[in-house]
Amino acid sequence: MSNSERTLHLNAFLMSTGHHEASWRLPESNPHSSTDVRHYQNLARIAERGTFDSVFFADSPVIYGNVGRRPVGKLEPTVLLTALAAATEKIGLIATASTTYNDPFNLARRFASVDFVSGGRAGWNVVTTAGPDAARNFGIEDQPSHASRYERAAEFLDVAGKLWDSWDDDAVLADKAAGVWVDSDRVRAIEHEGKHFKVKGPLNVPRSPQGYPLIVQAGSSEDGKDLAARYAEAVFTAQQTLEDAQRFYADLKARTAAAGRDPKGIKILPGIVPVIASTEAEAKRLEQDLDDLIKPEYAQIELARTLRVRPEDLPLDRQLPADLPDEDTIEGAKSRYTLIVELARREQLTVRQLIGRLGGGRGHRTFSGTPEQAADAIQLWFENGAADGFNIMPAVLPSGLETFVDQVVPVLRRRGLFRTGYTGNTLREHYGLERPLNRYSGALAGSVRA
Amino acid sequence: MSNSERTLHLNAFLMSTGHHEASWRLPESNPHSSTDVRHYQNLARIAERGTFDSVFFADSPVIYGNVGRRPVGKLEPTVLLTALAAATEKIGLIATASTTYNDPFNLARRFASVDFVSGGRAGWNVVTTAGPDAARNFGIEDQPSHASRYERAAEFLDVAGKLWDSWDDDAVLADKAAGVWVDSDRVRAIEHEGKHFKVKGPLNVPRSPQGYPLIVQAGSSEDGKDLAARYAEAVFTAQQTLEDAQRFYADLKARTAAAGRDPKGIKILPGIVPVIASTEAEAKRLEQDLDDLIKPEYAQIELARTLRVRPEDLPLDRQLPADLPDEDTIEGAKSRYTLIVELARREQLTVRQLIGRLGGGRGHRTFSGTPEQAADAIQLWFENGAADGFNIMPAVLPSGLETFVDQVVPVLRRRGLFRTGYTGNTLREHYGLERPLNRYSGALAGSVRA
Repeated sequence: MSNSERTLHLNAFLMSTGHHEASWRLPESNPHSSTDVRHYQNLARIAERGTFDSVFFADSPVIYGNVGRRPVGKLEPTVLLTALAAATEKIGLIATASTTYNDPFNLARRFASVDFVSGGRAGWNVVTTAGPDAARNFGIEDQPSHASRYERAAEFLDVAGKLWDSWDDDAVLADKAAGVWVDSDRVRAIEHEGKHFKVKGPLNVPRSPQGYPLIVQAGSSEDGKDLAARYAEAVFTAQQTLEDAQRFYADLKARTAAAGRDPKGIKILPGIVPVIASTEAEAKRLEQDLDDLIKPEYAQIELARTLRVRPEDLPLDRQLPADLPDEDTIEGAKSRYTLIVELARREQLTVRQLIGRLGGGRGHRTFSGTPEQAADAIQLWFENGAADGFNIMPAVLPSGLETFVDQVVPVLRRRGLFRTGYTGNTLREHYGLERPLNRYSGALAGSVRA
Repeated sequence: MSNSERTLHLNAFLMSTGHHEASWRLPESNPHSSTDVRHYQNLARIAERGTFDSVFFADSPVIYGNVGRRPVGKLEPTVLLTALAAATEKIGLIATASTTYNDPFNLARRFASVDFVSGGRAGWNVVTTAGPDAARNFGIEDQPSHASRYERAAEFLDVAGKLWDSWDDDAVLADKAAGVWVDSDRVRAIEHEGKHFKVKGPLNVPRSPQGYPLIVQAGSSEDGKDLAARYAEAVFTAQQTLEDAQRFYADLKARTAAAGRDPKGIKILPGIVPVIASTEAEAKRLEQDLDDLIKPEYAQIELARTLRVRPEDLPLDRQLPADLPDEDTIEGAKSRYTLIVELARREQLTVRQLIGRLGGGRGHRTFSGTPEQAADAIQLWFENGAADGFNIMPAVLPSGLETFVDQVVPVLRRRGLFRTGYTGNTLREHYGLERPLNRYSGALAGSVRA
C-alpha cells in the first residue's frame, strides 16, 4: 500500500463493557470495568495490535438516564487517555471535552499536556453538550441554546488555537551560557477579546509535538456540520444507509471546501456496531441474545426524553406517534433526534423494535455477519464516497474488539485497504494530516494558517 | 518502627531541573525536562525507592515573571501525575489545582479519576491562585479579593466533598440477573445551592478508592490557615526558623482542634531545600556555584512585583526600602510577602543577598551540609513541635533527589524516624489518615462526617 493511495482509517470507540446497553449482563463481562484502568489498557493494546488509527471515548459532565440501566460513571477522558498513553506506543488517543462547560485556557493546556505525555498522539472530540441536566451541574438552570453553544464552540476553538500558537516551536533556546531559557519575543500574549471569551495568554506550556491535538467533531446538525467544515480534521457520524452516508459525505466535503480548506483534510468516519461470527447465523444469534437482555422499561423512558414526549405516549408494541415535535424546536442533540425518528419511520419499527436497534448502537449502524461480510460492508462505503474510514463500536468488550482485530482487520489488509503496520508516530501522521503551522510565526516560513 | 510511633512524612516537591532558579544552567541539567514525562517518571521512581509518602507539583494557570529566566511552561499536574501513576506502584501523587479558576464538578471528577487510575494515590493541593495575571487568562480584569477567593475555596471544597459522597461505596450492585447495575437510591443529587456555586449532581463517577483525594493546603495567611484547619490533611509551609515553625505548628494544630477535628489528622510539612555533599565545605561550594549562576536582573523585577514597588526602588547592593506596603493591603500571596520582608529585615540582607536566598528556594528554608547534618536538622524540627515531616525541595534534579534518597534517607531510617518500606497502598495510608466516611450513607454505619 503506497503512501499515495487512499487509506482506510479505523477508530475504536470504547465504552466499558461495550456499546450494546445489555453487554454488561453477559457472563463474560466485568461490570466494574467502567472505572478499571487495566480494562481500558487491555482494549487499547488490542486496538494497537490491529494498527487502528486511534481509540476514542465519548463523554458528558452528567449522568444521562437511569443509573441502574448500564455502567455509568466514567473516568474523565484526558486522565484515562494519559493512562493509556503509558500502556501503548503508537495508537492515537482521542478524548471528548465540552466547549460549553470548560474554559479555553485550562482545556487547551490539558490537551497540550496529553500531547506531550503521549509523544504527539492526542486528539480532542469537540462537543457542545446538550441538555439541561448537564447545565445544572454548572449552576445554569436552562441549557444555552443550540446556536449559542455552537457559536461559543467556534470561538473556543479560535482561542485554543491562538493559545497553542502562543509559543513558537523554536521558542526554547535553552542557552545555558547566556542564562536565557526562552526567547521572550517568541512567546506572546494572544490578547483575545471576543463575544464569549477574553483571554490574555500566553499558554503556560510550550507548543506540543503535534502543534494542535487532532480536532474531531461528532455532531451532525447544520450547526455541527458548519463547525466541522471550519475546524474538524476527523468527523464521527451516525449514518444508517449508504445513500444517507454518501449525502452526508458529499455535503461535508463541499462545506469544507467552501470554508477554504482542502476536503482531504477532513476524514469522515461513520459509526458501525459490528457483531462478528464465523457464520451469519451465529452472528445473528449473538445479536439476538444481546437484544433479549435489554430491559425495555429503561429504554422507553430515555427514548421519551429524547423525543420530548411522555413515556406513556410510547406503547412498546406500537409505532412512534405521528405528532412528534419538529426538529427545529429541539435545543438538544438535534441530529440524533432526526436519525431516530427517520429510522423508525423508514423501517416502520414498533417502539420495542426501535429500542432493540438503539440499544445495540444508540442510533449507529449495526452490522452482524462474517468477517468477509463485514469487510465487504466497509469496502462498499469506503469506495463509494460514503466514508474515509469507520468508527468501530464493538457491541461487547473486549471480545468484540478482539474479534474485529483478529478476523476483520486481516481481511482488510489482504485487500490492500488498511495498513499492515504504523508508518508514523503521531495521531496526525496516522490520519495523513499536516502538523498545523503556527499562525504567528508561520508567516516566517512563508505561510500563515488562517 | 511500630505503627503506634509517630512517623516522619516526606514529600518530594518536584520542579523541572530543580528548585534553584539557576539549576537549568548546570552542565548536567536537561533544560527541556519541563515537558519531558520520562524525566518526571525517573524522579518519581527515585522518590519511591526512598519510600517517600508522595510527590507533588505546584501549579498556576499562568506564567509568572520573565519566561527567559528559567524553565516555565509546565504539564498540567493531573495529566502529569496520571503518567507517573503508570510508572510507579505505591507513592502518593499530589497535584495543585485552583479553586478560583476551576468548576467543582469537573475538578472533583478529575481527582476521582486520578484516584481510580492510581489505585488510591491521589492528593489535591488546594490553592486560590493569587495575582491579576492569572485572572486575565479567564476573562477577569482584576483578581478576586483574597477574602473572596478563600470564601469560594471553602464552598468549592464543600461541593467537591458532596460530589465525592454522591455515590455510596456499595452503590454498584452489578446484578446481571435482575438487570440492575446500580441501586439508584444509593446515587443521589446533591442539590447544592450556595453563594458561589449551584450544583445538582450526582457526580458521574463512583466513589473513588480513597473516598476523597488527600486534601493539601499550602497558603499560610490567616485565611489560608483557617481553610487548612477546616479541610486540610497535609500542609506545606515555608518556615525559616525553628521558632517560627513551632509557632506555626502550634497555631495550626490549635485551629484544627478548634474546628472540631483531631489535630493528628493534619500533617504539617515545612519546605526545605537541601544541598547535600560529603563535607559541609563541599555543600557550601555547590550552593555558591548555583547562586553564582543567578542573573539578578530577572530576580530584581520579580521581587519588585512581589513587594509592589518599582524595580528601580531595589538597588542590588542596598537593603530593602523602609517604606514597603503593609501586608494588609496585599491581595496576592500574603504569607509569601511577609516571609520575604521578614527574612530580609531579620538577616539585614542586601537585595542581591536576598535574591540569592530566594533563588535557592523561593522563600523556603535552604540547608547545605552533610547527610548527617541534614538528618539532624530534620530530627530537631520533627521532635520539637515544628514539623510532622518535610516537603523536600531539591535544588537540582535529579541529582539532589538521588543524593537525598541515597544518603539522607538511610540515616533517617537508622535513627528509626522513617519507614523502611511502604506498609500501605494508598496515599492516605502513607500519611496515617482515615478514609473519610460518606456524609450521606455514613450515618448507616453509625457516624456522620460533618
